[in-house]
Amino acid sequence: MQGNDQQAYDRGITIFSPDGRLYQVEYAREAVKRGTASVGVRTADGVVLAADRHARSPLIERDSIEKIHEIDDHVGVASAGHVADARQLIDVARRQAQVNRLRYDEPASVESLTKEVTDYIQQYTQTGGARPFGVALLVGGIKDGEPRLFETDPSGTPYEWQAVAIGGSREEIQNFLEDEYTEEMDLEGGVELALRALESVNDDGLDASGVDIATIDVESKQFGKLDEDEVSARLDEFELGGEN
Amino acid sequence: MQGNDQQAYDRGITIFSPDGRLYQVEYAREAVKRGTASVGVRTADGVVLAADRHARSPLIERDSIEKIHEIDDHVGVASAGHVADARQLIDVARRQAQVNRLRYDEPASVESLTKEVTDYIQQYTQTGGARPFGVALLVGGIKDGEPRLFETDPSGTPYEWQAVAIGGSREEIQNFLEDEYTEEMDLEGGVELALRALESVNDDGLDASGVDIATIDVESKQFGKLDEDEVSARLDEFELGGEN
Amino acid sequence: MQGNDQQAYDRGITIFSPDGRLYQVEYAREAVKRGTASVGVRTADGVVLAADRHARSPLIERDSIEKIHEIDDHVGVASAGHVADARQLIDVARRQAQVNRLRYDEPASVESLTKEVTDYIQQYTQTGGARPFGVALLVGGIKDGEPRLFETDPSGTPYEWQAVAIGGSREEIQNFLEDEYTEEMDLEGGVELALRALESVNDDGLDASGVDIATIDVESKQFGKLDEDEVSARLDEFELGGEN
Amino acid sequence: MQGNDQQAYDRGITIFSPDGRLYQVEYAREAVKRGTASVGVRTADGVVLAADRHARSPLIERDSIEKIHEIDDHVGVASAGHVADARQLIDVARRQAQVNRLRYDEPASVESLTKEVTDYIQQYTQTGGARPFGVALLVGGIKDGEPRLFETDPSGTPYEWQAVAIGGSREEIQNFLEDEYTEEMDLEGGVELALRALESVNDDGLDASGVDIATIDVESKQFGKLDEDEVSARLDEFELGGEN
Amino acid sequence: MQGNDQQAYDRGITIFSPDGRLYQVEYAREAVKRGTASVGVRTADGVVLAADRHARSPLIERDSIEKIHEIDDHVGVASAGHVADARQLIDVARRQAQVNRLRYDEPASVESLTKEVTDYIQQYTQTGGARPFGVALLVGGIKDGEPRLFETDPSGTPYEWQAVAIGGSREEIQNFLEDEYTEEMDLEGGVELALRALESVNDDGLDASGVDIATIDVESKQFGKLDEDEVSARLDEFELGGEN
Amino acid sequence: MQGNDQQAYDRGITIFSPDGRLYQVEYAREAVKRGTASVGVRTADGVVLAADRHARSPLIERDSIEKIHEIDDHVGVASAGHVADARQLIDVARRQAQVNRLRYDEPASVESLTKEVTDYIQQYTQTGGARPFGVALLVGGIKDGEPRLFETDPSGTPYEWQAVAIGGSREEIQNFLEDEYTEEMDLEGGVELALRALESVNDDGLDASGVDIATIDVESKQFGKLDEDEVSARLDEFELGGEN
Amino acid sequence: MQGNDQQAYDRGITIFSPDGRLYQVEYAREAVKRGTASVGVRTADGVVLAADRHARSPLIERDSIEKIHEIDDHVGVASAGHVADARQLIDVARRQAQVNRLRYDEPASVESLTKEVTDYIQQYTQTGGARPFGVALLVGGIKDGEPRLFETDPSGTPYEWQAVAIGGSREEIQNFLEDEYTEEMDLEGGVELALRALESVNDDGLDASGVDIATIDVESKQFGKLDEDEVSARLDEFELGGEN
Repeated sequence: MQGNDQQAYDRGITIFSPDGRLYQVEYAREAVKRGTASVGVRTADGVVLAADRHARSPLIERDSIEKIHEIDDHVGVASAGHVADARQLIDVARRQAQVNRLRYDEPASVESLTKEVTDYIQQYTQTGGARPFGVALLVGGIKDGEPRLFETDPSGTPYEWQAVAIGGSREEIQNFLEDEYTEEMDLEGGVELALRALESVNDDGLDASGVDIATIDVESKQFGKLDEDEVSARLDEFELGGEN
Repeated sequence: MQGNDQQAYDRGITIFSPDGRLYQVEYAREAVKRGTASVGVRTADGVVLAADRHARSPLIERDSIEKIHEIDDHVGVASAGHVADARQLIDVARRQAQVNRLRYDEPASVESLTKEVTDYIQQYTQTGGARPFGVALLVGGIKDGEPRLFETDPSGTPYEWQAVAIGGSREEIQNFLEDEYTEEMDLEGGVELALRALESVNDDGLDASGVDIATIDVESKQFGKLDEDEVSARLDEFELGGEN
Repeated sequence: MQGNDQQAYDRGITIFSPDGRLYQVEYAREAVKRGTASVGVRTADGVVLAADRHARSPLIERDSIEKIHEIDDHVGVASAGHVADARQLIDVARRQAQVNRLRYDEPASVESLTKEVTDYIQQYTQTGGARPFGVALLVGGIKDGEPRLFETDPSGTPYEWQAVAIGGSREEIQNFLEDEYTEEMDLEGGVELALRALESVNDDGLDASGVDIATIDVESKQFGKLDEDEVSARLDEFELGGEN
Repeated sequence: MQGNDQQAYDRGITIFSPDGRLYQVEYAREAVKRGTASVGVRTADGVVLAADRHARSPLIERDSIEKIHEIDDHVGVASAGHVADARQLIDVARRQAQVNRLRYDEPASVESLTKEVTDYIQQYTQTGGARPFGVALLVGGIKDGEPRLFETDPSGTPYEWQAVAIGGSREEIQNFLEDEYTEEMDLEGGVELALRALESVNDDGLDASGVDIATIDVESKQFGKLDEDEVSARLDEFELGGEN
Repeated sequence: MQGNDQQAYDRGITIFSPDGRLYQVEYAREAVKRGTASVGVRTADGVVLAADRHARSPLIERDSIEKIHEIDDHVGVASAGHVADARQLIDVARRQAQVNRLRYDEPASVESLTKEVTDYIQQYTQTGGARPFGVALLVGGIKDGEPRLFETDPSGTPYEWQAVAIGGSREEIQNFLEDEYTEEMDLEGGVELALRALESVNDDGLDASGVDIATIDVESKQFGKLDEDEVSARLDEFELGGEN
Repeated sequence: MQGNDQQAYDRGITIFSPDGRLYQVEYAREAVKRGTASVGVRTADGVVLAADRHARSPLIERDSIEKIHEIDDHVGVASAGHVADARQLIDVARRQAQVNRLRYDEPASVESLTKEVTDYIQQYTQTGGARPFGVALLVGGIKDGEPRLFETDPSGTPYEWQAVAIGGSREEIQNFLEDEYTEEMDLEGGVELALRALESVNDDGLDASGVDIATIDVESKQFGKLDEDEVSARLDEFELGGEN
Repeated sequence: MQGNDQQAYDRGITIFSPDGRLYQVEYAREAVKRGTASVGVRTADGVVLAADRHARSPLIERDSIEKIHEIDDHVGVASAGHVADARQLIDVARRQAQVNRLRYDEPASVESLTKEVTDYIQQYTQTGGARPFGVALLVGGIKDGEPRLFETDPSGTPYEWQAVAIGGSREEIQNFLEDEYTEEMDLEGGVELALRALESVNDDGLDASGVDIATIDVESKQFGKLDEDEVSARLDEFELGGEN
């Protein structure tokens, strides 16, 4: 199927192609690939979220390149793709986390938060007058003592993972994770795996300010970001730093 | 009818082609075929739902590949096609089951739940500004001591079956079911038939984590999923396991 | 008028062609012809509705192939065309029958029920953002001791008939009815005529499970379906059964 | 103006062509011409409405081919064109007649009823999202002792006539009326003129069941239809009957 | 600017062409020219409105060819163009005249009534989903002892005139008025000028039933139409009658 | 960028072209240029507004060719472009002036009135379903003893000027103003400059009825129009009158 | 991807291209580049905003060319691109600043104000029926003793910077900033850097009336614009003035 024929189906978001595909959703997946990569790793004692945050200028504040966000004390999100779209979905997740605390007087489960977000995404793929969200999210957190790691994609489908990559170079990084991941890893091993995975597609190595890492561990049930010194220490320890 | 002519009719969902067809609904049926297969078998003592759930990565949690869902104690659903669409219809069915319990103080009938869902689907094929649902469902359950098994398709038509397949390779599996199904089967025979049917189109055999099975039996009126060990035992018993 | 010219008018439902035609309504009539046939016969002592219900698989429950429906005690409907559309119109008729009983404390007339439905159909042919209904209905019933038989078509026009066919092979069956119908027929004669009419376009004869028949007789004012044994007895009696 | 150029203007109902025409309204006039003819004649002592109602099958009930309708005791309507559209306008007229009786405690004037209908028609020619009505009406009645006869056309313009034809063969019949009409005619003379006018374009003559006639006379102020015997007597008297 | 280029701009009403024109408004002006002419003349002691009302059949009631309408005791309107559109604007003017009397307990000024109508017209040229009004109006009346004569055009612009023509042959008639009009004319002189102006573009002369004339004089402040005898007398006096 | 390419962007008002332009806004600026010119001059003791008002017929009332309008005691507006659009914006300004007096019990500032109008204009350039306003305004007035002169353009941008021209021949007149304007001018000097500027692009000179002039002086804070005699006296004094 | 192919995706704002881009957002970025440049510099003791404001005529009031605006006492904004769009976003920011003071009784943070604005921008890139905002903003201010400097772009993404340029010649100015910026600068050094950066792309040097500068210093937490004399003194001091 070429040229003019395909065009007929991808201009309108809400219609199927003759072979049963939704092109706008597939193009939104391409928007995800245009973003830098994010990685999630689930270990027995917690979840690791890591993200590559390139900067187009040395004068930009790295912290303003938002890739990892706290949703609630016990849940964080890493994103890849269209940044402005990601911010909308993160707002949806935060509001839902608050609603849950108010209504049931307890933290929301990672799974139900994820599904609130994917339901929201799905509506933008079926109803006319809007485009899909050009972003994928990794939702990691602790619920009832269990670490959980979910992915949302632009079709609005939730998936649960042991370890997963989204964004640019997704396929290569996922292959790396499949080769290296073991269920026996502890949280620190998860941090190392996530960093090595990001490094595997960066020819120049990683630098501490260009990587965003957060963990949510089973014991504290607390989302926490590593500061630049902590990241730097790991890069040295794992020999992942670039030349600069 | 070729190329440009056909295009004229499939861009807008809500119009008929000169030969009286609704192309968008037909393309939504193609979206169903792009999904992996699900099978339903009705026996005298209960209903069996079975689904193929391939995983694109060994790191994905199989349980997050949602193919079979509990709607109410006595009703379950297996889906094939666009996963995010399936989740919306399952929500419709669950809400309706709850409404029924609240309003009439008794469980909803399998047939009325199915027709609530098909009415909902039909509206998306007639009113502008939206696309049809790219998913088919098998709705199985017990009502008044009778096992019932329904199919919903993207046009919003309900069908009742003794044994039926939806999704990829539908035709081959349905032929298999027509050859092998007998009304005298018991529930365990239904499980065997469903597994053999799925295996008939899988060259590499089945593995326990890649198959989702649930039964609703007449006696307990309870939806229940088989765990991975129970599936594994059947695959061994019926010699359906693959090499891995 | 050929090719491109015609296309200009049939994409939008709500516009006339230069020769004053509404193509979308005409294409909806084609959708009716894609369905299997239904037949209605009015006799002095009641109305007969009969419908061909082929099944695409021996495992399908014939009763779930809905062609004849009870609207109220004294009114039934047979449909041909898009099944999911038919279900919407049947709901409209049933709601209207209930409203009538509540409001006037008496059963609705067959004619007023028919016109409620055709008004509903007409709106879908004039207002933008929706397609016409791809279905025709035969509405039969008793009111004030009189048997009545109406047809609704996709333009929203009501017609009253002595005997009429809708759906596939309509022209042939209607010719058959015109040759064979007499005003002196009794209800049983109407059943025979309806079955012979359906058989006239079925090379392989009829089988009891593949025909749906209902009558509403003047005396009891009751809609009633014939069960499979009753149908089978007629097919034997009239020598209309096929080989299987 | 040919082919592609014209198409540019007739697809959207609400726009003018460069020469100031509304093509959709003109095409709706073609839809009127596709219907069988209706004739109205105003005489000093009443108004006559007559309509040709062909039937496509001998089994159809002629009375269900609706061409002449009572709006109120003192007003009737004959239509030509799209039947389902006519029914909507007739409902508008009937509701307005009722509103008038309730609000002013007296029958509505023929002129004000006509103008309510034409205002309603005009809106469908100016506002987007709908098509014009493909029907013309003759509104005849008595008000303050005066017989009145109006025509509504698809643009929403009201005209008052002494004698007028709408629908198929309009031009020929109108020419006939212009030649034969005299202001001195009485009601029976009006009936004869109306029948002769319809017959003038029917090669096979008229038959009683194929003609619908109603009168509203000044004295009784009552709309009344002629029954088939009364029509038959006139056809014999005027030697207008066909061979069958 | 030719063919395809122009089409790009005239399909959508609400957009400008590259040279800053609104084609739909210009085409609506063509619709005005398709109507028969109307003429207004303002004299020191009153305003004259006159209109050509051809009839396509001798059987049509001339009075039903509406060209001049009373808006309030002291204001009248003559129209040219799309008749059904004119009726809507006349309703707007009448409602506004009533509102003014109710709210301020005095008759509305001719100028403010005109501007209410032009504001209404303008909205149909800027907001999507509707077409402009294909009609021009002459609004004549008396306010505070002053005769006033306004024109509204399809763009929604109001103009005040001493003497003006709208509709078919506008240019020729306007030239005639510019040559013949003097400020010293009295009302009867205005009637003669208006009739001569209409006659100047009618090769066959005028006949009394084909001309509609009304005056609003300063003294009585009363809109009044001339009856057919009064018109006939003037045509004889001014030797403007045709042969019939 | 030529022909077809450009068309793609100027049909829909709400979209950018690849080089970041809004063509519909640019075409609306062309609509402004199609109007006759208006000029504004700010001097130390007041603001002058002047406008060319050609008439297409000697019978038109010049005062009805609206180019200069009073908004409030202390503010006036001169327009150029689509007259019917100008009237809408003038209504917006007048309503806002009234609201200000009611709410704050003091006259609105010239700047805030201007910005209310430009905000209103901007919305018509961003939201779908409407076209931009094809008109520019000069807003002149006194606030806190200061003369102010603003321009609004079709994009909704406000500019403040010492002396400015809008409408036809804008560039030539603006050049004239840049050459001749001095900050030391008094109000009468401003009137002379404005008249000379308009005359500079009129080969036939100006005539008193064809020019509309108003001033708002610092002392009286009163908008006032010059009557025809006052204009005539200036034209004689400045030797700007044409031959007629 | 060339010509026709690209057109398919940039006409509708709400859809992705096959490579995952939103062309309308990219074209809105071109609209930003069509504006003159603005520069922001953050130093330890405050934030500097500077903007180039060319005038197309010497008679225009420079202060009416709005490039830098006060949002609240402690926050200012510099814009580049479509001026009328900028005014809408500045209104959004001001309203939000007021809401914050009313609701929490304290000034809004610079970051939260920025994100309110970017959320507002994002909605115009996803929902149909509107175009994106063709403007970028620099938001500078003091919160909790910290100077902050943010950029908003047409996609609705917020970025934080040490020093940044938006608008025409963005790339060249940003390179200049990257070469010259040091974290040790004080506020006056920031003013010098900002002026030098603007001058680097102006062949004719800067003149005091053509540059708009504001600072918000940590100590006073007060937004303040430099008057023309203050700007002139800096241009002399830094030898940045042009010949005029």
